[in-house]
Amino acid sequence: MLFISEDREYLLSPGEVLETDLGILEIPEDVSPGETVETHLGTEFVARKLRGPDLFHHFERTGAPMMPRDIGLVMGHTGIAAGDRVLDAGTGTGVLSAYLARAGAEVLTFEQDEEFAEVARENMELADVAGAVDVRVGDITEQLDDLSGFDVLTLDTADAPEVVARAPELLRPAGYVSVYSPFVEASHEAVDRAREAGLEAIETLETIQREMDFGDRGSRPSTAGVGHTGYLTFARNPV
Amino acid sequence: MLFISEDREYLLSPGEVLETDLGILEIPEDVSPGETVETHLGTEFVARKLRGPDLFHHFERTGAPMMPRDIGLVMGHTGIAAGDRVLDAGTGTGVLSAYLARAGAEVLTFEQDEEFAEVARENMELADVAGAVDVRVGDITEQLDDLSGFDVLTLDTADAPEVVARAPELLRPAGYVSVYSPFVEASHEAVDRAREAGLEAIETLETIQREMDFGDRGSRPSTAGVGHTGYLTFARNPV
Amino acid sequence: MLFISEDREYLLSPGEVLETDLGILEIPEDVSPGETVETHLGTEFVARKLRGPDLFHHFERTGAPMMPRDIGLVMGHTGIAAGDRVLDAGTGTGVLSAYLARAGAEVLTFEQDEEFAEVARENMELADVAGAVDVRVGDITEQLDDLSGFDVLTLDTADAPEVVARAPELLRPAGYVSVYSPFVEASHEAVDRAREAGLEAIETLETIQREMDFGDRGSRPSTAGVGHTGYLTFARNPV
Amino acid sequence: MLFISEDREYLLSPGEVLETDLGILEIPEDVSPGETVETHLGTEFVARKLRGPDLFHHFERTGAPMMPRDIGLVMGHTGIAAGDRVLDAGTGTGVLSAYLARAGAEVLTFEQDEEFAEVARENMELADVAGAVDVRVGDITEQLDDLSGFDVLTLDTADAPEVVARAPELLRPAGYVSVYSPFVEASHEAVDRAREAGLEAIETLETIQREMDFGDRGSRPSTAGVGHTGYLTFARNPV
Repeated sequence: MLFISEDREYLLSPGEVLETDLGILEIPEDVSPGETVETHLGTEFVARKLRGPDLFHHFERTGAPMMPRDIGLVMGHTGIAAGDRVLDAGTGTGVLSAYLARAGAEVLTFEQDEEFAEVARENMELADVAGAVDVRVGDITEQLDDLSGFDVLTLDTADAPEVVARAPELLRPAGYVSVYSPFVEASHEAVDRAREAGLEAIETLETIQREMDFGDRGSRPSTAGVGHTGYLTFARNPV
Repeated sequence: MLFISEDREYLLSPGEVLETDLGILEIPEDVSPGETVETHLGTEFVARKLRGPDLFHHFERTGAPMMPRDIGLVMGHTGIAAGDRVLDAGTGTGVLSAYLARAGAEVLTFEQDEEFAEVARENMELADVAGAVDVRVGDITEQLDDLSGFDVLTLDTADAPEVVARAPELLRPAGYVSVYSPFVEASHEAVDRAREAGLEAIETLETIQREMDFGDRGSRPSTAGVGHTGYLTFARNPV
Repeated sequence: MLFISEDREYLLSPGEVLETDLGILEIPEDVSPGETVETHLGTEFVARKLRGPDLFHHFERTGAPMMPRDIGLVMGHTGIAAGDRVLDAGTGTGVLSAYLARAGAEVLTFEQDEEFAEVARENMELADVAGAVDVRVGDITEQLDDLSGFDVLTLDTADAPEVVARAPELLRPAGYVSVYSPFVEASHEAVDRAREAGLEAIETLETIQREMDFGDRGSRPSTAGVGHTGYLTFARNPV
Repeated sequence: MLFISEDREYLLSPGEVLETDLGILEIPEDVSPGETVETHLGTEFVARKLRGPDLFHHFERTGAPMMPRDIGLVMGHTGIAAGDRVLDAGTGTGVLSAYLARAGAEVLTFEQDEEFAEVARENMELADVAGAVDVRVGDITEQLDDLSGFDVLTLDTADAPEVVARAPELLRPAGYVSVYSPFVEASHEAVDRAREAGLEAIETLETIQREMDFGDRGSRPSTAGVGHTGYLTFARNPV
């Protein structure tokens, strides 16, 4: 849950205690959205239900997390639904895993760095989806023989093409794989592996998003530029 | 569920009977994904679990439905999660409503055209989310006094700005409103209403998406152009 | 001409004298590209022929000048050629005028601010096109009755639509008008005036340009964003 | 010159005779823009001065010519000026060469296909720039030892990187090379050669251009998509 004062926002779990410059904030175990919690110095924080973009802004980061826009594109192009079994790698900060779990998916996610995995697990607690996200430490490419029955694979690692090559065994019929990569070459390789593996509906998309400015002088796309995040490659398992 | 032969795909509900040029296809009430159903002339169709993009391709259309990409952006920027209460207008073909319901949301959606609403209801049956989507016939702006407690508003109608103006009463604290419009002026008006209503984190985004071609001669963005779909305006209710 | 030392670049005219922290630099009247000129303290500067982008980087600025990219688009879409008579407003820094004059056009340009016009005139001297660019102080809309016979109009002022409305009298048959504006509404108004005036081939273009990064890890569009500069509206006089 | 009737446009040289379905059209040697020429059946054609975009639309094509937009970007980023000596390859339809010559440049252009070169030469006649464009048949990479003293190189051939590697000998100080290629890999290679050759200000740009629609319902980017044309790579010779 988020706890919000006039100029602070903290993402905290029920029962958590945080020392702030405004005093010590003890979150009751049974706190509900809308309730007010006071620090021992008397500053009030209002409890607020989390929404996805809060995870992006408040999770402890172990790298640059995927942005809500790209997470959304993964959700839209793969049609994420409650009950989906998702195989994810690498976990990183865990924003994608938490989003998917919040939409009802059950996520198994691999992270090679043990400390990063620990941070991701804490993030899942904060997002209240620890029960739906299994953060496993290790190299996904070494575990592929033991994995199967997934509806969606979401890959954001350098060895994604290797996993794509095994997608037909990992995915249920008509399941999707998505690969996120900033690079043309890595996306190209993922497409090559997808073609060789006999996947269908293979496509690599680049997305340019700009904010509009509505000012006194008129309407215009923002002068603040919009940088590239990553290419998204999608492919689908045949029936 | 989808039923797929070599060169046909039909979206059908258990118990449905379809006359095709390949023979009559009777779907058993207890069919499961992966099972094969034969027409009376002996052509085999394999049952396949639906995924979001199938809804876009197979729903009966009453207009141009929102594309998976834009649906995904709405899901990502508002952080759609299971248990969300969503107020939607106008329903149209219902692809957005079905996507949100499949991610665990409970959707109340308004459609002014009675026949369109009926088609949308049938589409919800096909997507197996009829229990989660309430398609109501009528003008949402006339019902606003009786509505409240939503986590997200998703608006794709000409009178969206009028609804945005009432967002603070309709939304729970920290809930999001999204407005989809092809037009600059309509987006501008939505932003103006959002500002006047005291909403936060107001932004209008335009999205340009291009497919990459990986061919023998090299990698390049597709020569097939990518047209504009719509601007997406987001705003958030204060706590 | 540009005069370049190891870490300085100065745009100077023959005969000009510049006091720099590296000593006084006296440019001979008969200097040629490739020659070396020394300051009185002995630092060498090499004379270099100017090219268009140098004007953008070295002209004294009285505002944000049009970028080489947008100037190029004006040149390409209007087909600027040697011998063209161009009517331009407002002058500003004068980079567009200088580019057009360097491509052989004869330019009459209006600038409302007397001091800005003076700077622009000095910039024309530096670009060696003072003979081809007539920088006139005043409001172009008050001079329209006395103007005619232009091949191209290039407008970058708030009252561009008013000039567009008079384009048929100002332009030769098949001549082009271009309007540069950051704003949707101003571009819309220019298009409306162009339609009412019976101009042809009316179009408003927005241009998004991104730099590619070729690094050790792969090829990708730059993360440094590319902001909006302006919409370019073109229209053509009928025969 | 262009000759225009109600619903026909022909690009013809003075003295040329054209048989049309509207009768035989004999262009006098001394025809001037604005004059009317009649076919022997009495249909009137008005003579019109050519502008750059007419070359794109009316030249006989031997392949897909570079678009006015990309030609403009080459002109803007290299600062094409009257008196420039330009080395171009490959000629193709010759629209770029004709544009540059019309802006006062002297162009030497190489085309490997003898028939294409012949068409290009006729196109130069039509554009009235035959005296300024030398269309040479052959492989530019075999002629590099004999070439030097150019202000700008404009390359649109598969072996562009090979020419870029020799740019320091081909270009005058501070001269520009531009490479047009649809492909990431070819652009990457041009950049690598430019870096190895010690060129400066190296950049590869991709350009996305969209038309705006101003209709009764509002303003919006066109739904008609805008495809990729090519990446433009620029680099500059040091002083």
